[in-house]
Amino acid sequence: MAFTEDEYRDEENRLEHSPVRRRLFIIIFGTSTYIGKLFDIILLVLIGVSVLAVMLESVSYIQATYGAVLRIIEWVVTIFFTIEYIARIWVVKKPAQYIFSWLGIIDLLSILPTYLSFIFVGSQGLAIIRALRLLRVFRILKLMRFVSEAQVLGKALVTSRHKITVFFFFLLILVFILGSIMYLVEGGKGGFNSIPLSIYWAIVTLTTVGFGDITPTTVLGQMIASVIMLLGYSIIAIPTGIVGAEIYKGVSGKQAANVNTNRLCTSCGVEGHRYDAEYCRNCGAKLNHSESK
Amino acid sequence: MAFTEDEYRDEENRLEHSPVRRRLFIIIFGTSTYIGKLFDIILLVLIGVSVLAVMLESVSYIQATYGAVLRIIEWVVTIFFTIEYIARIWVVKKPAQYIFSWLGIIDLLSILPTYLSFIFVGSQGLAIIRALRLLRVFRILKLMRFVSEAQVLGKALVTSRHKITVFFFFLLILVFILGSIMYLVEGGKGGFNSIPLSIYWAIVTLTTVGFGDITPTTVLGQMIASVIMLLGYSIIAIPTGIVGAEIYKGVSGKQAANVNTNRLCTSCGVEGHRYDAEYCRNCGAKLNHSESK
Amino acid sequence: MAFTEDEYRDEENRLEHSPVRRRLFIIIFGTSTYIGKLFDIILLVLIGVSVLAVMLESVSYIQATYGAVLRIIEWVVTIFFTIEYIARIWVVKKPAQYIFSWLGIIDLLSILPTYLSFIFVGSQGLAIIRALRLLRVFRILKLMRFVSEAQVLGKALVTSRHKITVFFFFLLILVFILGSIMYLVEGGKGGFNSIPLSIYWAIVTLTTVGFGDITPTTVLGQMIASVIMLLGYSIIAIPTGIVGAEIYKGVSGKQAANVNTNRLCTSCGVEGHRYDAEYCRNCGAKLNHSESK
Amino acid sequence: MAFTEDEYRDEENRLEHSPVRRRLFIIIFGTSTYIGKLFDIILLVLIGVSVLAVMLESVSYIQATYGAVLRIIEWVVTIFFTIEYIARIWVVKKPAQYIFSWLGIIDLLSILPTYLSFIFVGSQGLAIIRALRLLRVFRILKLMRFVSEAQVLGKALVTSRHKITVFFFFLLILVFILGSIMYLVEGGKGGFNSIPLSIYWAIVTLTTVGFGDITPTTVLGQMIASVIMLLGYSIIAIPTGIVGAEIYKGVSGKQAANVNTNRLCTSCGVEGHRYDAEYCRNCGAKLNHSESK
Repeated sequence: MAFTEDEYRDEENRLEHSPVRRRLFIIIFGTSTYIGKLFDIILLVLIGVSVLAVMLESVSYIQATYGAVLRIIEWVVTIFFTIEYIARIWVVKKPAQYIFSWLGIIDLLSILPTYLSFIFVGSQGLAIIRALRLLRVFRILKLMRFVSEAQVLGKALVTSRHKITVFFFFLLILVFILGSIMYLVEGGKGGFNSIPLSIYWAIVTLTTVGFGDITPTTVLGQMIASVIMLLGYSIIAIPTGIVGAEIYKGVSGKQAANVNTNRLCTSCGVEGHRYDAEYCRNCGAKLNHSESK
Repeated sequence: MAFTEDEYRDEENRLEHSPVRRRLFIIIFGTSTYIGKLFDIILLVLIGVSVLAVMLESVSYIQATYGAVLRIIEWVVTIFFTIEYIARIWVVKKPAQYIFSWLGIIDLLSILPTYLSFIFVGSQGLAIIRALRLLRVFRILKLMRFVSEAQVLGKALVTSRHKITVFFFFLLILVFILGSIMYLVEGGKGGFNSIPLSIYWAIVTLTTVGFGDITPTTVLGQMIASVIMLLGYSIIAIPTGIVGAEIYKGVSGKQAANVNTNRLCTSCGVEGHRYDAEYCRNCGAKLNHSESK
Repeated sequence: MAFTEDEYRDEENRLEHSPVRRRLFIIIFGTSTYIGKLFDIILLVLIGVSVLAVMLESVSYIQATYGAVLRIIEWVVTIFFTIEYIARIWVVKKPAQYIFSWLGIIDLLSILPTYLSFIFVGSQGLAIIRALRLLRVFRILKLMRFVSEAQVLGKALVTSRHKITVFFFFLLILVFILGSIMYLVEGGKGGFNSIPLSIYWAIVTLTTVGFGDITPTTVLGQMIASVIMLLGYSIIAIPTGIVGAEIYKGVSGKQAANVNTNRLCTSCGVEGHRYDAEYCRNCGAKLNHSESK
Repeated sequence: MAFTEDEYRDEENRLEHSPVRRRLFIIIFGTSTYIGKLFDIILLVLIGVSVLAVMLESVSYIQATYGAVLRIIEWVVTIFFTIEYIARIWVVKKPAQYIFSWLGIIDLLSILPTYLSFIFVGSQGLAIIRALRLLRVFRILKLMRFVSEAQVLGKALVTSRHKITVFFFFLLILVFILGSIMYLVEGGKGGFNSIPLSIYWAIVTLTTVGFGDITPTTVLGQMIASVIMLLGYSIIAIPTGIVGAEIYKGVSGKQAANVNTNRLCTSCGVEGHRYDAEYCRNCGAKLNHSESK
């Protein structure tokens, strides 16, 4: 639940009457005040520490030596997160809205595993999901630039989602067919002992990952493999082309904006003035900014 | 045999006199009526089920336990497909046209393997080819958007097919030469024990797949391998560039909408007229073609 | 030594007086006459056959069975090539020019190995170099389209050669440094037992080939490896971007030159005027701005 | 510490009074005089030789045979570099500026390891860092073209650094999550015996490197692996698209000429008017066409 400036103000005013909640609200959700920033930075550090703890805990020999310490760290963090989570619910106007927002769900998921580890042993590994909370870094540092960049990328992916879908659909059918052919050709020998496994191999090969745990042994198999590889080597051009084209449109948006805006001159009706134009480049009349859309 | 709206109408009208075939036609080929849609969805589900069945059947332990069930599923689906196939032939005006259309061939190929499995054991694995029938999904959901996207991609690939061909031709000669050199350098040791195999290895390496089942052991061999890898790492830029450029042209058709040429108007000195401009867009004077460069 | 139409004519005329050489010249270098085409096609077939022969000969068990046959094929082809080579030298005006032309050198290299195989055993494998002769296919089929496409690619590579060079230079220094670091980190264990070998591994990793014959075992080593992989995964964008950009410039040269807007001229109905056009470029009539959409 | 022409002149003049230092300065930093060039070329050769020596020294059997020779070479080079380093400090006006410049630090780092090898055995391997000195080649050959190309690339990377950062940030979180999931799915078997190791594997897979030293064995694991591979195969499009777009903007600077020309308004001095602009977009004054270049 990221707030826009205005939403944030509204919330703040609303809490006029209850100073405690208001203060908490400013600390937890605010990033303008010194203490608000501090809180967020502490939060980030804690997230980082706990993610590290969860990771190290999975390493047997570290676990053996520092297991106790790591458990303590994890619990301290988890309790802090729990309090923070409750606080967030308490201070916001529409708790439901927060709880079911992306950030809200992530916040919850990042505390659950530790508690679940009582019931299901090993499930604390899931706590790694709190790595997602690191995404808050963008909000805190108010990296509007980064956000806008991310939006350019996001937009590129969104606008190209249909092409990507089509591409993936064909890709899937392709690996289904190729995998089955390989299964028949290799005759269930050397790892190709089932169609699903052969499809897995086809994906490994087409994506040019090539683990090498399964490799064709027959001559025909190697021929087909060669075709698959050359195919994978070439069709990677398609997603790259799609996204690349969209991104280019994104980054050259500003450029294009100058070339061809639909700003209109009210006196001579000439279109396509630059956004920063003061006067019509055609008749010299003063341009009315409200015309720009 | 995908119908355009008009073709579809014609067919429908043609069958005016024979209500049964007409009804069947609307159900099988039509997607506008409720029952027509239903039929297609059932068809899709059956295709999905049978593809899954064929896949699972190839997994030895699943085969051992549920073999019988899977066989039944496959036969039921195959018989349904057979009836559908015959029905399609029966209802269309020009059966031949359907039979030899892409969809028609796929429909046939997707029922043959099961019958062939009487003669050739294991050939039912070929039934996986019916995965291709999943392509019908595009027709059914009438995803015009997707289709148009697919067309953009298709167009990009078609327009760049000559470049791709040239690229592949050079690629093939390249791996032939490189493979042979490696064969000579590695002297038939460690997997490089024949030129074809060395060429296979060259493809594995050039496409950056790198299975690792065959790897150079001599110093010189590793040097050449390094060159091949760097080469493959770089020339992937070529197919990517080709397709990317075409796709970009596809998506940016509109954007490039007002580019400047350096054609000059002799009377008012305005630059940037279109090559096919007859009159200056600014002062209306006749343009002298010799000015265009 | 590919002839331009004119050069070809000159040669032909020059040989006016010696009918035999002239005839031979037209057959060998010409592709317009029926027999000239036939000669070239036979040549191509022979090249293909001999390349195949050389390849198969390297496969031990095929060699054991059909060794004799393959030797004969190779000798027949080699003798034919030798005669052809001598003939080419004989009929052209400036033999030296042909001998030291690319095609001339390839022609020579494609016959030498077989003769050398008397002195150096196994050197006949080098005969694979005659695969290069397959490039003649472009000349024969007179695929001007392909040639022009190839030129677009060639131009793209030529114009971007400096960028590529810079890129490769940095890449080399990069793998030198990274390889040495890995050598120190892994301490000569598990394949990293020399700097050159570690550099080889760095190339394998950076180019995302990843054979897996050498892999880091220490934690620090795996961390550095991760960095190298992510680096390689990202910087592949650079050659791709470079070549892609050049190719795009190549393919979009024409397009940019005159793109349509959908502005309409009310008097002559010509579409595609620039947004800022005052007068119709076709009939010179004043344009009505309301037409622009 | 690369000098601009002017800086270089200043330095030279400054040393007017002390002929020796002046002479040395011209030899070491200068590249215009014959001896200056010679010095730099000798330097390059020595760097190359020493890099080779360090590399070969790490190869056990070469070390065994030519160890002594290589040690001598390395010492000779190191002593030469040391003298050169001191000389550089002596002749420049602001030694500090040189010492803490990139080139200065590299120069120091390239001599330290050899001396350190007294204290820490094996540390001479670090001497490979002097490979970085090879970058001087650009200065010497005064390959302004290459430099400008490098700048285009550099600019492309700089302008896209925010997008790249965002991309990497998401990539890291992605491998963290994916790695942990795989750790839980594979249950610490077959190499996935800790989260860090699983993350390492996730990177190996996502970047399509695929060493194959660790591979999923469970069905679910292979499914997730397939998703990771397809993901990695597709999202490589993002960095490629980002950098490609920037590079394209770089190389197509001219094409974008319309956006930002250097047409000047004589009355208010605002630049960047469209070629077809009649009046200044800023002050409305009539534009003089002769200003456009």
